[in-house]
Amino acid sequence: MIRVDREVDELRPVKISVGVIKYAEGSALIELGDTKVICTASVEDKVPPFAKGAGHGWVTAEYSMLPRATPARNPRDAARGRAAGRAYEIQRLIGRALRSVTDLGALGECTITMDCDVIQADGGTRTAAITGAYVALIQALHRMLDDKRIEVCPVREYLAATSVGIVGNDYLLDLDFEEDSRARVDMNVAMTSSGRIVEIQATAEGRPFDEMDLSAMLRLAHKGISQLIEVEKQVIGEYAEAMGIKV
Amino acid sequence: MIRVDREVDELRPVKISVGVIKYAEGSALIELGDTKVICTASVEDKVPPFAKGAGHGWVTAEYSMLPRATPARNPRDAARGRAAGRAYEIQRLIGRALRSVTDLGALGECTITMDCDVIQADGGTRTAAITGAYVALIQALHRMLDDKRIEVCPVREYLAATSVGIVGNDYLLDLDFEEDSRARVDMNVAMTSSGRIVEIQATAEGRPFDEMDLSAMLRLAHKGISQLIEVEKQVIGEYAEAMGIKV
Amino acid sequence: MIRVDREVDELRPVKISVGVIKYAEGSALIELGDTKVICTASVEDKVPPFAKGAGHGWVTAEYSMLPRATPARNPRDAARGRAAGRAYEIQRLIGRALRSVTDLGALGECTITMDCDVIQADGGTRTAAITGAYVALIQALHRMLDDKRIEVCPVREYLAATSVGIVGNDYLLDLDFEEDSRARVDMNVAMTSSGRIVEIQATAEGRPFDEMDLSAMLRLAHKGISQLIEVEKQVIGEYAEAMGIKV
Amino acid sequence: MIRVDREVDELRPVKISVGVIKYAEGSALIELGDTKVICTASVEDKVPPFAKGAGHGWVTAEYSMLPRATPARNPRDAARGRAAGRAYEIQRLIGRALRSVTDLGALGECTITMDCDVIQADGGTRTAAITGAYVALIQALHRMLDDKRIEVCPVREYLAATSVGIVGNDYLLDLDFEEDSRARVDMNVAMTSSGRIVEIQATAEGRPFDEMDLSAMLRLAHKGISQLIEVEKQVIGEYAEAMGIKV
Amino acid sequence: MIRVDREVDELRPVKISVGVIKYAEGSALIELGDTKVICTASVEDKVPPFAKGAGHGWVTAEYSMLPRATPARNPRDAARGRAAGRAYEIQRLIGRALRSVTDLGALGECTITMDCDVIQADGGTRTAAITGAYVALIQALHRMLDDKRIEVCPVREYLAATSVGIVGNDYLLDLDFEEDSRARVDMNVAMTSSGRIVEIQATAEGRPFDEMDLSAMLRLAHKGISQLIEVEKQVIGEYAEAMGIKV
Amino acid sequence: MIRVDREVDELRPVKISVGVIKYAEGSALIELGDTKVICTASVEDKVPPFAKGAGHGWVTAEYSMLPRATPARNPRDAARGRAAGRAYEIQRLIGRALRSVTDLGALGECTITMDCDVIQADGGTRTAAITGAYVALIQALHRMLDDKRIEVCPVREYLAATSVGIVGNDYLLDLDFEEDSRARVDMNVAMTSSGRIVEIQATAEGRPFDEMDLSAMLRLAHKGISQLIEVEKQVIGEYAEAMGIKV
Repeated sequence: MIRVDREVDELRPVKISVGVIKYAEGSALIELGDTKVICTASVEDKVPPFAKGAGHGWVTAEYSMLPRATPARNPRDAARGRAAGRAYEIQRLIGRALRSVTDLGALGECTITMDCDVIQADGGTRTAAITGAYVALIQALHRMLDDKRIEVCPVREYLAATSVGIVGNDYLLDLDFEEDSRARVDMNVAMTSSGRIVEIQATAEGRPFDEMDLSAMLRLAHKGISQLIEVEKQVIGEYAEAMGIKV
Repeated sequence: MIRVDREVDELRPVKISVGVIKYAEGSALIELGDTKVICTASVEDKVPPFAKGAGHGWVTAEYSMLPRATPARNPRDAARGRAAGRAYEIQRLIGRALRSVTDLGALGECTITMDCDVIQADGGTRTAAITGAYVALIQALHRMLDDKRIEVCPVREYLAATSVGIVGNDYLLDLDFEEDSRARVDMNVAMTSSGRIVEIQATAEGRPFDEMDLSAMLRLAHKGISQLIEVEKQVIGEYAEAMGIKV
Repeated sequence: MIRVDREVDELRPVKISVGVIKYAEGSALIELGDTKVICTASVEDKVPPFAKGAGHGWVTAEYSMLPRATPARNPRDAARGRAAGRAYEIQRLIGRALRSVTDLGALGECTITMDCDVIQADGGTRTAAITGAYVALIQALHRMLDDKRIEVCPVREYLAATSVGIVGNDYLLDLDFEEDSRARVDMNVAMTSSGRIVEIQATAEGRPFDEMDLSAMLRLAHKGISQLIEVEKQVIGEYAEAMGIKV
Repeated sequence: MIRVDREVDELRPVKISVGVIKYAEGSALIELGDTKVICTASVEDKVPPFAKGAGHGWVTAEYSMLPRATPARNPRDAARGRAAGRAYEIQRLIGRALRSVTDLGALGECTITMDCDVIQADGGTRTAAITGAYVALIQALHRMLDDKRIEVCPVREYLAATSVGIVGNDYLLDLDFEEDSRARVDMNVAMTSSGRIVEIQATAEGRPFDEMDLSAMLRLAHKGISQLIEVEKQVIGEYAEAMGIKV
Repeated sequence: MIRVDREVDELRPVKISVGVIKYAEGSALIELGDTKVICTASVEDKVPPFAKGAGHGWVTAEYSMLPRATPARNPRDAARGRAAGRAYEIQRLIGRALRSVTDLGALGECTITMDCDVIQADGGTRTAAITGAYVALIQALHRMLDDKRIEVCPVREYLAATSVGIVGNDYLLDLDFEEDSRARVDMNVAMTSSGRIVEIQATAEGRPFDEMDLSAMLRLAHKGISQLIEVEKQVIGEYAEAMGIKV
Repeated sequence: MIRVDREVDELRPVKISVGVIKYAEGSALIELGDTKVICTASVEDKVPPFAKGAGHGWVTAEYSMLPRATPARNPRDAARGRAAGRAYEIQRLIGRALRSVTDLGALGECTITMDCDVIQADGGTRTAAITGAYVALIQALHRMLDDKRIEVCPVREYLAATSVGIVGNDYLLDLDFEEDSRARVDMNVAMTSSGRIVEIQATAEGRPFDEMDLSAMLRLAHKGISQLIEVEKQVIGEYAEAMGIKV
């Protein structure tokens, strides 16, 4: 048996805590097994240069790890190179995923910056960050509605993300670090509550894969994401319903 | 009709010139419509720290644009920010795609750096870079075999990449810049000559998509990549056959 | 009365959790009112250039804040300037304080890097970081003794730090952010369990102070630090006694 | 004989292609033997801080090499140091040379940035860049006149540049890389069509030289520059005449 | 005897030259034994972002060493790391000390930048910089009063700084580099002419110290600072009296 | 008359002080009118990567200005851009000029770094830096001979540099800042005591110049440099003669 402590199609224990940082308009700590990410949403009354005067807002993300989030210590960003490239790639993914469920026009001229800081990394940090950031974003939007900074909620659907992969001949849901390092295909998927895809990235680490593999992995991702959205509902369901977010 | 000058499932005119930079072990200029990328392969007798003493080599990529490759001039890398993040994301994609068809163990302790410099950008630069870099890589490996630096060719298959997308209600192959900016889904695919997937990245720009869309886009990508591989064969087919690369 | 929720010579509620980051040789989360700092100790078998071949080790610190640890979001380190200067000053203070109670010769040729990352900042982050880092350091040394990497414990005493200040005409212990911004003198003190001073920094923000003020503030600091050391004993007392650390 | 393939006072084969980058207001590819430089002119409606409100424009240049333009790969600009210093020195030279033939007052408040990117380097890249950039500049000014952004052509003369040197006891025109590395004096000259000097830089690499050497080198430079200006006339002569540029 | 050439409570020979840089609004060269620091005051009509519109000014400092101010050459700031952290810490100290005797409201909306550049370093550079910068500041304020840029002098008292320390069992005033490297406690103090403290920083390098040590060191510092203020009076006493600065 | 205080072919008052920095192997302060530059020579037992194992040494230079060396304060190097480019250009010039009179083979495997720091800038800083650095270099070589680190003096001739220019219709020697800003041609020349040229850089700021201008300027430069070499002889003549340096 490939996994001793859970089924191949089973998520690790997941816990989302909302409002963990008192200063942020929105915040969440997501714990997925030993992976822990603090996500904050910061609302600022400015937009990036390319959006100036366009009458709509922007959602962007930054991703970083504490130096000792990993088995060996990573130097901080001053020492650039490989780690930094990875962070850029990931934060662009997070930003795109959140923007794809947000009506930027309904935001008005403001920027919401999602900071995703990994406290402890045991695989799946980028998808955990998307799920945690989504929760922080909803809390921030809820506050903006309360404060009349926006009139309607710019998000219409739930969103969550997970990783899947092929290890040996098995399709596995929610890889931890050790599994990820043995995977020959590694896929990250972000989906909405209606089961539609917002972002999909699949990479052959060892040898190429075919459309059948892709299909099987998507099914697994769908299952995991449905469960993650259930956890989101437990923590922001009340807000979300009042804000008109679809189940 | 959505396109005036070509069919929805038609590539732009493509031309690959090999050996364009006299100093590089391998080099190619790929022209795909108005998109032009110079790719060089540089072989160096060193490996990155994480691969020291492991007895295998490394393939990595760097991606950049000339400042005026685009309609408006982009500041060079000194002025970082958004553009740099994009470059990191792209060069990581190129490196992964090439490594996935390369047997790093057969390389020995050396690094091949693929430099992909965009001379003119009209959409699809990252996938054009993968295709061009593949050709430059094969030329470099051919020279290494000739020079007895390696004993067997570490690459077994052809590789190429293309973009597809959904514009309005149409699936389009090989988006140019103008189409890309209107696309509601944007997908990049790298495949081998056996039709298997090496990397797939799909992003909902406007609204989410479903598995049927994914399937239709994959078919289109497969078609385009088969044609790109035919072009590759015209320029490196002779080498490649002698090196034992599968059609 | 100057404070509504506590006495002028009273610390905020303090809690230290040990071993919060599974990968680090030592780690602690210190919560002091709304100030929260994660401290990790990373042991690496190398020393900085100036200590090469000298037969002794090194203890150093890095200090950073999550972007939204504060009421307004701070840009990450890429955007340097003033914030970065502050971080450099603080991490040098933390490093010096820890080294002053550590026998570097007993460490052997290794470096222990203390990462102090502020999750939430409500005043007193630098002194909280010293206290938290001390706990993480002891846990790391305990593990090194267990693993026979060192033979004797290089630390002989407890260490903790606190801030004191003059607000209006009152001497206050453990200033929160709001008090700190009104203080006309701001002092940080690190002391050992024997009540001796390891580091003292006092700054007149508004108008100069005299030796009597200094004396009064030191008494207050002593009181607070004694209480902090009691909290340390609750969490690492068992280790510390076995390691021969003096009360 | 010192040279096998050409006379000591003979340029390498030279070719200038205009309009090679479709987005740029002006562009040229100059090929001088194996040296190849892409030059683009970008017109922007802004001036540097020191020229704000002065009622005149600015012409500036940036110079870079692709990493594999040279026999050994050069790291990109991130890895600074020696290479970067060379680039700064060269781009300042190019900017000065172009400004010296441009009436900045006639430009109005705009900046023209000349990007000179070396695709392949076999000696003489800085002087080739001046010659290529001049052609790109004229194309850009022609377009500005067409678009009524300027009323008169701010350039009155042709400009070109070449290198000369002393190798052994011979004065050589247009050194290639191998000759340059053996030269004991290396000189770069930029001249106008009237044979007057715009910039001259001469460096003793091995031992000092005297005024007679200088004179002999200047004559050689004059000869080469006259021929380069002939090539310029073939590609922009028609524009230039209409714009009132003196032969 | 611990010192051969001076008493334990004796300063090194000190000399302050005012107006050494002709362009600066204020400047001073302070020589303290072999330690030499050039301090300039630059007045600019702008304030940092956090002070915009607040109706008051700002005083800030920058500190640097020439590369060969020290026995071994230090790389310039490009090569960051340890040295840079030290400079940040020091310049923050200098800025705070000067601001604590300056009424920022009386400055109006301008920034005075104190540049402290160490020409030769033999211990005590940071306190020498405070003393020298104070003199340069007064010269600059004198000029501002003359030019009617300010109406009243924003500084009310003299300010100077010195270092003291414990070497072996002796309390020493004004440590040179060699003494500093043997000190087990190192303290920097900035005081006003009324003998009150503006900044105090004491660090145990070897083993902790107690309040009695602190008291003894403060007395020594007071003595040295009184003498330094006498030197200041010789060079700016005439200005200062006219400006209403208290003795 | 173009100049009120000196003849057109007259240098400003020049003074060179040797050995001004006690730690450096060689040092000089050169004062040329109001231009003041501190030059130090640092000898280190290492060579740059490109010279490893080649059996010869290296001479390199770094050039910087104190922030307030100029009428308006310049930000330090952190704020790069235009100023930094200028510094790179100048330090490359200084390094080349010194290397051209140095037999690198006779140096052995060491690097001499010349730091040229401008304390006050009133035109002609780069040529003053060459002259001052030459003096510092000779002092350092003298010490190396004394210490038997080298066997023969690697420098055979005196070297000095000056600026000349055309202001209006006059040829002027040794331009100050105000003259330099009005000059239509600006030329820097470095020459040896035998009157031969080591480096020449001439730039048309306003309009091009011809060979006759060049010749006239060279004569003027020769005159100035001869006088500068006389000043050098006064301060290092004794050393230099003993070291076998030609007059």
